[in-house]
Amino acid sequence: MIENSLFLNRLIRTALEEDLGPGDLTTDAIVDPAAKGRAVLLARESLVLAGLPVFRGVFNFLSPDLGFEFYFEDGGTVPAGEKIGVISGALGTILKGERTALNFLQRMSGIATLTRRYVDKAGSKVKVVDTRKTVPGLRILDKYAVRMGGGFNHRLGLFDGILIKDNHIAAAGSVRRAVSLAKKGAPHTVRVEVEVEDLTAVEEAIQAGADAILLDNMSPQMMKEAVAIVADRVEIEASGNITLENIEEVAKTGVNIISVGALTHSPRAVDLSLEVIKT
Amino acid sequence: MIENSLFLNRLIRTALEEDLGPGDLTTDAIVDPAAKGRAVLLARESLVLAGLPVFRGVFNFLSPDLGFEFYFEDGGTVPAGEKIGVISGALGTILKGERTALNFLQRMSGIATLTRRYVDKAGSKVKVVDTRKTVPGLRILDKYAVRMGGGFNHRLGLFDGILIKDNHIAAAGSVRRAVSLAKKGAPHTVRVEVEVEDLTAVEEAIQAGADAILLDNMSPQMMKEAVAIVADRVEIEASGNITLENIEEVAKTGVNIISVGALTHSPRAVDLSLEVIKT
Amino acid sequence: MIENSLFLNRLIRTALEEDLGPGDLTTDAIVDPAAKGRAVLLARESLVLAGLPVFRGVFNFLSPDLGFEFYFEDGGTVPAGEKIGVISGALGTILKGERTALNFLQRMSGIATLTRRYVDKAGSKVKVVDTRKTVPGLRILDKYAVRMGGGFNHRLGLFDGILIKDNHIAAAGSVRRAVSLAKKGAPHTVRVEVEVEDLTAVEEAIQAGADAILLDNMSPQMMKEAVAIVADRVEIEASGNITLENIEEVAKTGVNIISVGALTHSPRAVDLSLEVIKT
Amino acid sequence: MIENSLFLNRLIRTALEEDLGPGDLTTDAIVDPAAKGRAVLLARESLVLAGLPVFRGVFNFLSPDLGFEFYFEDGGTVPAGEKIGVISGALGTILKGERTALNFLQRMSGIATLTRRYVDKAGSKVKVVDTRKTVPGLRILDKYAVRMGGGFNHRLGLFDGILIKDNHIAAAGSVRRAVSLAKKGAPHTVRVEVEVEDLTAVEEAIQAGADAILLDNMSPQMMKEAVAIVADRVEIEASGNITLENIEEVAKTGVNIISVGALTHSPRAVDLSLEVIKT
Amino acid sequence: MIENSLFLNRLIRTALEEDLGPGDLTTDAIVDPAAKGRAVLLARESLVLAGLPVFRGVFNFLSPDLGFEFYFEDGGTVPAGEKIGVISGALGTILKGERTALNFLQRMSGIATLTRRYVDKAGSKVKVVDTRKTVPGLRILDKYAVRMGGGFNHRLGLFDGILIKDNHIAAAGSVRRAVSLAKKGAPHTVRVEVEVEDLTAVEEAIQAGADAILLDNMSPQMMKEAVAIVADRVEIEASGNITLENIEEVAKTGVNIISVGALTHSPRAVDLSLEVIKT
Amino acid sequence: MIENSLFLNRLIRTALEEDLGPGDLTTDAIVDPAAKGRAVLLARESLVLAGLPVFRGVFNFLSPDLGFEFYFEDGGTVPAGEKIGVISGALGTILKGERTALNFLQRMSGIATLTRRYVDKAGSKVKVVDTRKTVPGLRILDKYAVRMGGGFNHRLGLFDGILIKDNHIAAAGSVRRAVSLAKKGAPHTVRVEVEVEDLTAVEEAIQAGADAILLDNMSPQMMKEAVAIVADRVEIEASGNITLENIEEVAKTGVNIISVGALTHSPRAVDLSLEVIKT
Repeated sequence: MIENSLFLNRLIRTALEEDLGPGDLTTDAIVDPAAKGRAVLLARESLVLAGLPVFRGVFNFLSPDLGFEFYFEDGGTVPAGEKIGVISGALGTILKGERTALNFLQRMSGIATLTRRYVDKAGSKVKVVDTRKTVPGLRILDKYAVRMGGGFNHRLGLFDGILIKDNHIAAAGSVRRAVSLAKKGAPHTVRVEVEVEDLTAVEEAIQAGADAILLDNMSPQMMKEAVAIVADRVEIEASGNITLENIEEVAKTGVNIISVGALTHSPRAVDLSLEVIKT
Repeated sequence: MIENSLFLNRLIRTALEEDLGPGDLTTDAIVDPAAKGRAVLLARESLVLAGLPVFRGVFNFLSPDLGFEFYFEDGGTVPAGEKIGVISGALGTILKGERTALNFLQRMSGIATLTRRYVDKAGSKVKVVDTRKTVPGLRILDKYAVRMGGGFNHRLGLFDGILIKDNHIAAAGSVRRAVSLAKKGAPHTVRVEVEVEDLTAVEEAIQAGADAILLDNMSPQMMKEAVAIVADRVEIEASGNITLENIEEVAKTGVNIISVGALTHSPRAVDLSLEVIKT
Repeated sequence: MIENSLFLNRLIRTALEEDLGPGDLTTDAIVDPAAKGRAVLLARESLVLAGLPVFRGVFNFLSPDLGFEFYFEDGGTVPAGEKIGVISGALGTILKGERTALNFLQRMSGIATLTRRYVDKAGSKVKVVDTRKTVPGLRILDKYAVRMGGGFNHRLGLFDGILIKDNHIAAAGSVRRAVSLAKKGAPHTVRVEVEVEDLTAVEEAIQAGADAILLDNMSPQMMKEAVAIVADRVEIEASGNITLENIEEVAKTGVNIISVGALTHSPRAVDLSLEVIKT
Repeated sequence: MIENSLFLNRLIRTALEEDLGPGDLTTDAIVDPAAKGRAVLLARESLVLAGLPVFRGVFNFLSPDLGFEFYFEDGGTVPAGEKIGVISGALGTILKGERTALNFLQRMSGIATLTRRYVDKAGSKVKVVDTRKTVPGLRILDKYAVRMGGGFNHRLGLFDGILIKDNHIAAAGSVRRAVSLAKKGAPHTVRVEVEVEDLTAVEEAIQAGADAILLDNMSPQMMKEAVAIVADRVEIEASGNITLENIEEVAKTGVNIISVGALTHSPRAVDLSLEVIKT
Repeated sequence: MIENSLFLNRLIRTALEEDLGPGDLTTDAIVDPAAKGRAVLLARESLVLAGLPVFRGVFNFLSPDLGFEFYFEDGGTVPAGEKIGVISGALGTILKGERTALNFLQRMSGIATLTRRYVDKAGSKVKVVDTRKTVPGLRILDKYAVRMGGGFNHRLGLFDGILIKDNHIAAAGSVRRAVSLAKKGAPHTVRVEVEVEDLTAVEEAIQAGADAILLDNMSPQMMKEAVAIVADRVEIEASGNITLENIEEVAKTGVNIISVGALTHSPRAVDLSLEVIKT
Repeated sequence: MIENSLFLNRLIRTALEEDLGPGDLTTDAIVDPAAKGRAVLLARESLVLAGLPVFRGVFNFLSPDLGFEFYFEDGGTVPAGEKIGVISGALGTILKGERTALNFLQRMSGIATLTRRYVDKAGSKVKVVDTRKTVPGLRILDKYAVRMGGGFNHRLGLFDGILIKDNHIAAAGSVRRAVSLAKKGAPHTVRVEVEVEDLTAVEEAIQAGADAILLDNMSPQMMKEAVAIVADRVEIEASGNITLENIEEVAKTGVNIISVGALTHSPRAVDLSLEVIKT
């Protein structure tokens, strides 16, 4: 759960230092520290929610004294116009944290909402997974949001999985040698996935001992042939230029996994507002 | 210049720790540390470039021994299919930094490219500016990219400008009192901008001593009337739901500044590739 | 309020690491961890108080279990010999935090006390403001102490205001060009202040669009003439060699703001003691 | 040497982040990045220099490309009006680092200059030492400046020496027990100094095994008697309300060490200027 | 290669701050900063070397001006009495870094030397791997040292491999459900290893889809039976109470991997000396 | 007390980031966040306990909601097979912190247990002390564990004591000059200890003003002679190749202090287990 992450506090601190820094000139000058407020978090479009613990964490970082009430949970679908929740407490604190908290929540819910659309199109027989094309510094949040949208995670980074690409194969001299080196040098706790660009490479990779095959930028027809060659011996991942338009066709080829870079490199922020009321 | 930022190194370190962490299992196992490589950075669509010093900084962080040649500069327009530059040196280092360097460059160039489109539509008589709706942790990069696209920056955070919104006015009791408190409490080095939602508030804000007026979500017709009321006494900023479709019309109202949240909250990553060749 | 600053905890940690570091050899060896104590914080001279939340924060950093009672607040005047407050709890903790807590409070109250003297001399028609001549690392505390003394803050750093000095004008070629570049390049949320050394430059700066004028090291007579030239069009700040002896005369010239470097670069620490009693 | 300190870089970074932060709005907007400059560092009063490596370090932190020429060294006396050195290189970098570099140098040279005055009055038979009454975060610089002024350092913090004060004695029950606990619990590599307020305590402390005696707030006459009692068996430190007026008399009492809090808690910043010339 | 680790610099800084901190009182007081020295690194017992880049990194952190000559490389065997290398440069710097550099090298070479003994006994048909029983904070160094000794690495942490233990199985209700949940929830890039304590669990785990089996604390006889059951379908790891006395017998059972906690939780530091000569 | 150390939290964070990092793949996938558990901490061999506050701190860092019950305290002897304590709360949290908490406790108790053996052999008339041969980054824990075992601490680092070794003497030219420089340059709050290798140096060091003598690698017979020469004038420390076999004989020579590097450079981790039960 994202609220238990060792890194969440640091992400929130970084974000607040950037926005609030030495102080909120406007609020500090105008708003009485004793003034209380209530703020309603509103979905201005239909969305899949992701990031509530981060949203809340921003305000908690500023003060432990705010109250929260939420009507939805991460992963839930919020209809347009619906109240997501209410914050109450010191008005100044609410105003200071507002933008930072929304920036997190709008991006994360944007990713979750987009992921849900891909997942719905792909159907339940295939895993829609993310990539390493995330925003620098926010990978754990981006990947969490993908899960909230119903997707799954590919490896987190270069350290928790082996993915042999063309450059590695070229460096090793052959698929066989690349796989062999990987199996020898890396912990036995990670799988060896091999990226292939044509069908002959598929069998070669399996023979070399690959645990999974990544089909790079293949046509659906070619994917089907690859699926037939693999014949359930290892997992098959489709990758490259997957869109909302073609994911259904790709899913039908029988691959097990479809990775989609756009989930995290180009999500649209969802439209949320925080209506603050002085009380 | 972004390469001189006190914070750039930290952003790069954070990004590399997240992606590379304790090591690149694949490259460490397969690629000979002595192997050399060359990588061509390619624009796979037409784009406005932003982030080359960050891109380069990622590789420099990993090793001081790589060579770089660039054919474009930040702010320049790169036609689809064009080579942006070439990196040469240790193959392993190129492979380890590739994804992180591209993640920065694709987002930043995405922002610059989108900004350029807004700026081109808005024309030269108005400043297109960003907002605080940036990705948490990357604000200085997001804002730099906006400048590279031909846009301008609004305040960096809550600490370098005063923007009095409805909540502040409500807390103060009146526009007059809010402006007065702001002028008294904040350094005289920042301007006082007041967000208004109707035309009567425009004159009220100016009378109260506002240095700038932000027209929130007004129709172009209403903006024109506001411009007439202001009559060049202070700067006027239009904000709220500005799109590529309506920015030209908004620009024609005579406002001085148009702020666009979408520049940084929802840019599409541009399509770049790094073609690595073992040498 | 300083107790809500994002940076306060870090300042306290740095200070404690420096003084207490791996441990208090004397107290750890001699004082029973179960021993309780009470400590009276005493003003040994008349002073304006600033820094109580920092003083308290030092002890809270070491242990959440101490009790505090304070008879004055920041900004208040404490007569010589008066008790400011009482701390009670673990004797060892009180002894470990004592010096660090006092070092903060003595400097901050020293600044507030000195500021109050300048403010009292200057009268209520002019703002006495600080400068960037603060102790490296403690700027937010120094500036807070100035406010507690009744002064106001100039810009916090180079990032939240524009101050065009002779070198900038020389670099730009003219006052006009310098102001124009500043207005174009910087966010519209900051003012443009121009430092001038003679009277002809005053009108030139206003014509160029300056929002404020800084009179650098002028005689009171010259300041009066500058005030007449400006004629309330923009704010005027007097700066350079302001002392307790001459501030009254400077105030009478009609300038709006007087900046005093000595407030923060050369305050005398006030004399405080913490009388600890084993209980 | 201070330039080798593990902590210097961090102090400089902290100071620059505070002053320069996300950027120098004025210089970035106005000064051409290619412009070159020269800056003369000038002593506007007679002073003892301390902090040149820190001054230089600030500029080096911003750019490795500046040139430096210095005509004095730390610890040297600079007559009023004399050039201390010259910096040359990118004009923008000089302007950005100027204030931070001067803030360090003015405080450090202020401490060194003040220390030199105390040392000159005290004469060569006694060590003038500092205390822990330093500015939070800058202790290593404050203590280095004292050495440059000809003074010596007392312990750096609570971790590198034992100083038994009245509260420790009260907590232990007696001087004897306090010293015994200290000798048992602390590393044998630190001395045990005992603070005494009357003459009977002097002998008691020595009998208890103290390695040094601190005479707290005693009159010169009483100090002389204490010196006679000690009779060279251990070192004797005088402390409390030492001023430039009375230090000579205190020195004559025969104590070995005189500690002066004012060296670091209330130094006056020396008057320096950096005259920048565009070239 | 360890010298390229993103974390090495931080480890060295932490270690130096702990040992050298604010300064080396002895060397700073006694050794002329201009004095030069040479130091010979000597093996006082036969050992497998690991950590030279860290050893060197410590001195480089203190000064870039030292010269190094090494006669062995990490992974090499050094006979007792042999010179490993020579450092030359500022005598003070050598003395300040000595202990920290040796502390790293003695531990790391201790691990490598111990690992080599296990590997030699185990023979070439089986991989000797480490565990997560490392010293907190030094895991990447401990694991690197194991590789230098000829061993291999198990997963680095909880994030780069799945190891289902009895508690996970109990929590899931059955091996089948535990494996199924793991396959569903975790990235497809990691293997699923299941720890078993009896033979019936072996087949159960394989049927459930385990990619590897960990035999926990089994007798060699039982291991042989487990190997027969597995019949090369997945990898088998032996774990628990492996010693230099029994590893040969365990290796003969036919398991693929033997994990040994003692490699990193209880290595003996090798005996090294650094003989410094003033030159 | 170690639980109050300014550095403990940082050590725990570093250790958890290393082991848990972005998450526990196994537990997150398999264990229901709502599941509760109980874990018994068991001594699988007789041991001296050290590190309970660190052990507990690891879990508290992950969650404030766990309950702890301990039947022993640091410094206590736990018989083989005895329960040390019980943790109860969220099963997932217990599993995530288990290895890190045990790694701390096993090393620290290993040091304490080994120290106790040395102390018991040495007898009560001599202090057994540690050295600077600790694991980089964990010195404060290593030194705390020595105290829990009944030993004492030598200086913490290079900054809290003076130890003049052969290289310093060579650099200074003579023992006399080395001691004199040390007394002049270093704070008077630290002792000056001189390492000697022969008997003539003993008297020379005392004459030079040494506060303590370190006998380096002398035979017991030679130590006795050194003790006779010193005749209680200063403290005498024996050092070099002290083992469990010879410490009793060394203690009988009459030295005051015996330093043992092996306590911290080569302790064996004690055998502990944490038996987790789902509840």
